[in-house]
Amino acid sequence: MTPKGFYYAAVKAKIKKWDKEDVGLIISDRLAAAAAVFTTNRVKAAPVLLSQANLKNRAHRAVIVNSGNANAATGAVGMKNAKATIEAVAKNLGIKTGEVLIASTGVIGLHLPMEKILGAVPQLAQSLGNDAAPFTRAIMTTDTRPKEASAQAKIGGKTVTVWGSAKGAGMIHPNMATMLAFTLTDAAIAKPVLQAALVEAARHTFNRLTIDGDTSTNDTLILLANGAAANRPVAKGSADYKKFVAALTEVCAKLSEMIVGDGEGVTRIAEIKVEKAKTEAEALAVARAVAGSLLVKTALHGGDPNWGRIICAAGYSGVPVDPEKMELYFGKYPAYKNGLPAKTSEEILAAEMKKKKVQMRLVLNRGRASTSYIFCDLSREYVTINADYRT
Amino acid sequence: MTPKGFYYAAVKAKIKKWDKEDVGLIISDRLAAAAAVFTTNRVKAAPVLLSQANLKNRAHRAVIVNSGNANAATGAVGMKNAKATIEAVAKNLGIKTGEVLIASTGVIGLHLPMEKILGAVPQLAQSLGNDAAPFTRAIMTTDTRPKEASAQAKIGGKTVTVWGSAKGAGMIHPNMATMLAFTLTDAAIAKPVLQAALVEAARHTFNRLTIDGDTSTNDTLILLANGAAANRPVAKGSADYKKFVAALTEVCAKLSEMIVGDGEGVTRIAEIKVEKAKTEAEALAVARAVAGSLLVKTALHGGDPNWGRIICAAGYSGVPVDPEKMELYFGKYPAYKNGLPAKTSEEILAAEMKKKKVQMRLVLNRGRASTSYIFCDLSREYVTINADYRT
Repeated sequence: MTPKGFYYAAVKAKIKKWDKEDVGLIISDRLAAAAAVFTTNRVKAAPVLLSQANLKNRAHRAVIVNSGNANAATGAVGMKNAKATIEAVAKNLGIKTGEVLIASTGVIGLHLPMEKILGAVPQLAQSLGNDAAPFTRAIMTTDTRPKEASAQAKIGGKTVTVWGSAKGAGMIHPNMATMLAFTLTDAAIAKPVLQAALVEAARHTFNRLTIDGDTSTNDTLILLANGAAANRPVAKGSADYKKFVAALTEVCAKLSEMIVGDGEGVTRIAEIKVEKAKTEAEALAVARAVAGSLLVKTALHGGDPNWGRIICAAGYSGVPVDPEKMELYFGKYPAYKNGLPAKTSEEILAAEMKKKKVQMRLVLNRGRASTSYIFCDLSREYVTINADYRT
Repeated sequence: MTPKGFYYAAVKAKIKKWDKEDVGLIISDRLAAAAAVFTTNRVKAAPVLLSQANLKNRAHRAVIVNSGNANAATGAVGMKNAKATIEAVAKNLGIKTGEVLIASTGVIGLHLPMEKILGAVPQLAQSLGNDAAPFTRAIMTTDTRPKEASAQAKIGGKTVTVWGSAKGAGMIHPNMATMLAFTLTDAAIAKPVLQAALVEAARHTFNRLTIDGDTSTNDTLILLANGAAANRPVAKGSADYKKFVAALTEVCAKLSEMIVGDGEGVTRIAEIKVEKAKTEAEALAVARAVAGSLLVKTALHGGDPNWGRIICAAGYSGVPVDPEKMELYFGKYPAYKNGLPAKTSEEILAAEMKKKKVQMRLVLNRGRASTSYIFCDLSREYVTINADYRT
């Protein structure tokens, strides 16, 4: 279910040697408010820098994306290429350059093949339609499945739709957004309210997951709102706003879980809930240490309830956890309590650890804050994919 | 080459189902000064806590070690077992309990098999000899090779020997020491001077390496100095002290490189030098981000000079690096300079990346501080070893 007033296109520009769409375009049939969050990496790709600059404009119409080349660590040449790309889009669509946002994903350190990109733009402009599937395929790299999600909310008697498309796979440890996610809504909502809603939704979804601990140079999460649903504008802090954020969070959460589940070589995902921390930051530090531990991730891969590795990771998280007070559960079963191994049988714990989505709960008993974090296992396949990514 | 006045023993106590020594003992024939550094993990194993407490005593005679069981996350029972172990050692050797240090390595969260441990102690006491090799085998877990190193220094006309034995393999990301390393010297040196020397040596060796980013619950580096070389005591800040620290650092550096080279599933190691940082802490943060990146580690495994991943890791290290000013070299060849890919051919970079020990140099151009860090590749074999470690 896509929102009203948006059109999609994708073409096979052969940026890499593959037979799939690799340049995609989204356009709104009217001016839209835009919001976005970008990677916190100090090394930002040219398209990230250009979108950040363009985001300052009042209203937007289009997003152009390519996969296969990140246009990162490419200096002034990379910025020139990104600008040439949005200029071509603006010219072909008859809109302003400042109304175009841009994103790229793929190998770092190669210049964009500009003949291919510029050759693709007129084709994109001519093939715009209602079907978003080709666009979603176009942003994929080592993703094995397309990722789309949608949700609806009633605002002042009007149905508002929120839709999103994302790509993930590797180099996923967003401290801001996932690698690439494009969300659209036909809600009428002012730009500052839209940005607040996006930050709130991302905080509990894209910023609470990891695949491999590497925050990419290209992470971009964009949200366009074109008002085609003709609802009364969503006001900050209103009941409408809550409904809108809930729908947006639902879409972001679905996309996040799809991204982790389709991480490179992933066979199993896990959610770690850290409870009774002193602060949310503290809970998050512990969750990140557990979710980032190679030993926890390999144990997850083997379906081995090797809970000592989780307690160990909490211990080096930087948070002054007390080993005698922590409690660890797999599903509803205790594995560790009062500084001692719990009496749950190995069989029961192993059954929990072999589920497709494993639930871990670590209670620190230090305060009242909590958080949760989604992560995945580490497999031989991940190594195979990444040992030879470029060839 | 082992120092004078130390004796070694090891027995096969079958702590795991393996046919190798798994309990080891070192004794000095006279009172020795002891120094040690331990894991920074908040979850410290019982033997770590007990050795920390015992280290406060003036002088020491013995170290008892077991592999196959970490005696970590075992609460009061674990502490009782560790105490019973050193009591048995003291009784069998006719020394004081406070003169015995203890270390364990292996699975977290299981209680020590005390009948096996206590049964081993009298055998150990009876089989003490000059050969350190069985001891070094006894501390190994998934290590494939024993690790010993030695160095000598002339102090006031007397030859002083420093020797060390270490085990590594996995869960290696010391922020204090490596998993287990025992160093011995026959130098005469007072306890506070010895501790300063050990901290200084560890800072540039064991604290500058990573295998998998997991800081264990059991990391222990012990140094005993028994004065059997009959040298004039090494005074802090003297030329003797410099010579002693140099010999100790040489031993620690050799053991460190052996540990990384024999990391679980390791096929290739790398040294990342970070230069021209503002502070050493800044250089270290960048080095750690690079050395810890799964994407850098898998590229290293594949011999793929995918330098964009190194630039990316520097970007998310938390240090405000400037992409336009960084320079990256493989061996002597530039890969990235002035914000752009350098013109070195892919073949030349690939040849550097396929060496057994790869040299990476990242110049930040922010100041005058530098550091170096040793790390290893990430292989399918690492995943295989750790997905099913306990079974």
